[in-house]
Amino acid sequence: MSLQWWQQACQPLDLVARKKAQARQLELTKPAGSLGQLEQLAIRLAAMQGSQRPRIEQLWISIFAGDHGVVAEGVSAFPQAVTGQMLRNFVGGGAAISVLAKQLGATLEVIDLGTAVPLQPLRGVHHLHVGAGTQNFLQGPAMTVAQLLIALEAGQASVQRAREAGSQLFIGGEMGIGNTTAATAMACMLLECPAQELVGPGTGLDSAGVAHKAEVIEAALELHRPAISEPIEILQRLGGFEIAALSGAYLACAQQGITALVDGYICSVAALLAVQLNPACRDWLLFAHTGAEPGHQRVLKALQAEPLLDLGLRLGEGSGAALAVPLLQLACSLHNDMATFAEAAVAERPA
Amino acid sequence: MSLQWWQQACQPLDLVARKKAQARQLELTKPAGSLGQLEQLAIRLAAMQGSQRPRIEQLWISIFAGDHGVVAEGVSAFPQAVTGQMLRNFVGGGAAISVLAKQLGATLEVIDLGTAVPLQPLRGVHHLHVGAGTQNFLQGPAMTVAQLLIALEAGQASVQRAREAGSQLFIGGEMGIGNTTAATAMACMLLECPAQELVGPGTGLDSAGVAHKAEVIEAALELHRPAISEPIEILQRLGGFEIAALSGAYLACAQQGITALVDGYICSVAALLAVQLNPACRDWLLFAHTGAEPGHQRVLKALQAEPLLDLGLRLGEGSGAALAVPLLQLACSLHNDMATFAEAAVAERPA
Repeated sequence: MSLQWWQQACQPLDLVARKKAQARQLELTKPAGSLGQLEQLAIRLAAMQGSQRPRIEQLWISIFAGDHGVVAEGVSAFPQAVTGQMLRNFVGGGAAISVLAKQLGATLEVIDLGTAVPLQPLRGVHHLHVGAGTQNFLQGPAMTVAQLLIALEAGQASVQRAREAGSQLFIGGEMGIGNTTAATAMACMLLECPAQELVGPGTGLDSAGVAHKAEVIEAALELHRPAISEPIEILQRLGGFEIAALSGAYLACAQQGITALVDGYICSVAALLAVQLNPACRDWLLFAHTGAEPGHQRVLKALQAEPLLDLGLRLGEGSGAALAVPLLQLACSLHNDMATFAEAAVAERPA
Repeated sequence: MSLQWWQQACQPLDLVARKKAQARQLELTKPAGSLGQLEQLAIRLAAMQGSQRPRIEQLWISIFAGDHGVVAEGVSAFPQAVTGQMLRNFVGGGAAISVLAKQLGATLEVIDLGTAVPLQPLRGVHHLHVGAGTQNFLQGPAMTVAQLLIALEAGQASVQRAREAGSQLFIGGEMGIGNTTAATAMACMLLECPAQELVGPGTGLDSAGVAHKAEVIEAALELHRPAISEPIEILQRLGGFEIAALSGAYLACAQQGITALVDGYICSVAALLAVQLNPACRDWLLFAHTGAEPGHQRVLKALQAEPLLDLGLRLGEGSGAALAVPLLQLACSLHNDMATFAEAAVAERPA
């Protein structure tokens, strides 16, 4: 492929703002380093926002949904109709991410990239009809190049809307029965490791189900490995529409200068792929949590991520990222509003 | 001692509310268990509040401050005058906990149990004058029995005020130069382990400072161990006024039926002591975070705690607990406001 939009330059961080934020952290009335990860978090947000006083006030959450042909191999505990049912639940306000978005005052948009079971149009859902789910990647590529491009651009378009709404933070979420299988297959290719090491129960497989899922993934790897020569082909052959949209969104965030807060396993795999496509995009990614799925930790490690939460979450939908938002906001408040040693007349020198 | 107030019965949990909350978690539109620790958190809050729909809306934060005679041995990186200076900073709004309390809409009260450097009365601080800090416990007991009783009751009185304000959550914070030394000495006695295993840098000692601190603590243990026959004597001989107030507060929370969210290392040691004084109080304690101080993890393990955050915090002041509050609130929102499978017409059966 020639130079694609996602390979174009990312926004640089503001190194002056970063340096000033680092200096300010040392002047605040607390022992240096005593706020742990929240100190670096505030400094990174200052560098991204080009401001000594970073703020996370306008939040944007895009949920990308899509079905997976590989579900025909019996790799999920839930029926495929759930993807569509959950779309209705997202806009109806009853899903976890709907509740969290409301509590956080976040804008929530829902993008249907293509379900296996045809849906009547739902008010509040963008229906993109990329396909009736992906193809079963045990029989060929999960998607065509044309579908891949549409899905990547769907993510980019969401980030564009987030930017127009003045958002300081973008959260991508996903819904798609079978998508831990696709994500694990992608992670195996990206990390060059066998399925056995990364595979997990997803939404609720038993141990026999997990073993079968590993076999399915190994067979897919064997089928596609010879044809894959660059990362984008991993996404096309083994990914999903919602995973491609997430990768596109993370790349667009970095290009447009919006902080992305990455959710769970599926999102982290999409982020790892995005970083392989355009390494500079890593600067714009924060990682919300370490989830329960075994492959998640491996992917985070490859990304040198320092996730904020470790609560055994494995829901997806962007829920883990939403749960981490107050930490970002409070890290900013502490950075911006604490007194300095000089202002408070507190001794800062060791005794 | 005869039966003391802190040995009196704790409020029982509401087992009916717990059962109903457990059942509700299984009906919500998510794979069972996929919200990880937040599910058990909501269930525990339901059992404490005796409600299927627990809420954390009224928050109370009490900061207990006191100085430590053992600072004469050179165990802290900061001068003792900082305790008083930080009291001014707490009420002035510039300290970390002040910023967090404001953001969370929490009531913040500050209790000065006794500083080494005499203070002019500060508006907004309760000055209790238990003593000019504790005595150096290398030369005798840290406090008299009378001082111990006053400090324990100071914690109880704070919880009483929290209850009168309708608080659903009590956070105790602490400030006291030298208090990781006192807390570590107490933890060594409570866990029966050598200082070397628990000692850490506190607010910023170097490795020589840490080694010296361990020697000081070992000497104190040798001096007091023969005289200690029950847990309350550990507090009197090795503790601090603010640590005693925290223990008193946790015991009073359990007796009055208010959830306590335990902050960092010092608070966790106070909680461990409270549980040894009255084991039923454990039911009312939630643990906010695993801090950077090495002894903290050991104390949490002894309490079978499942802390919510692990961000390398080591500030104290109740700041780690305050940072975890949004997780409690969002756990309640998810529990209360998500749709059930039946309400949302989502398939809950495995495929």
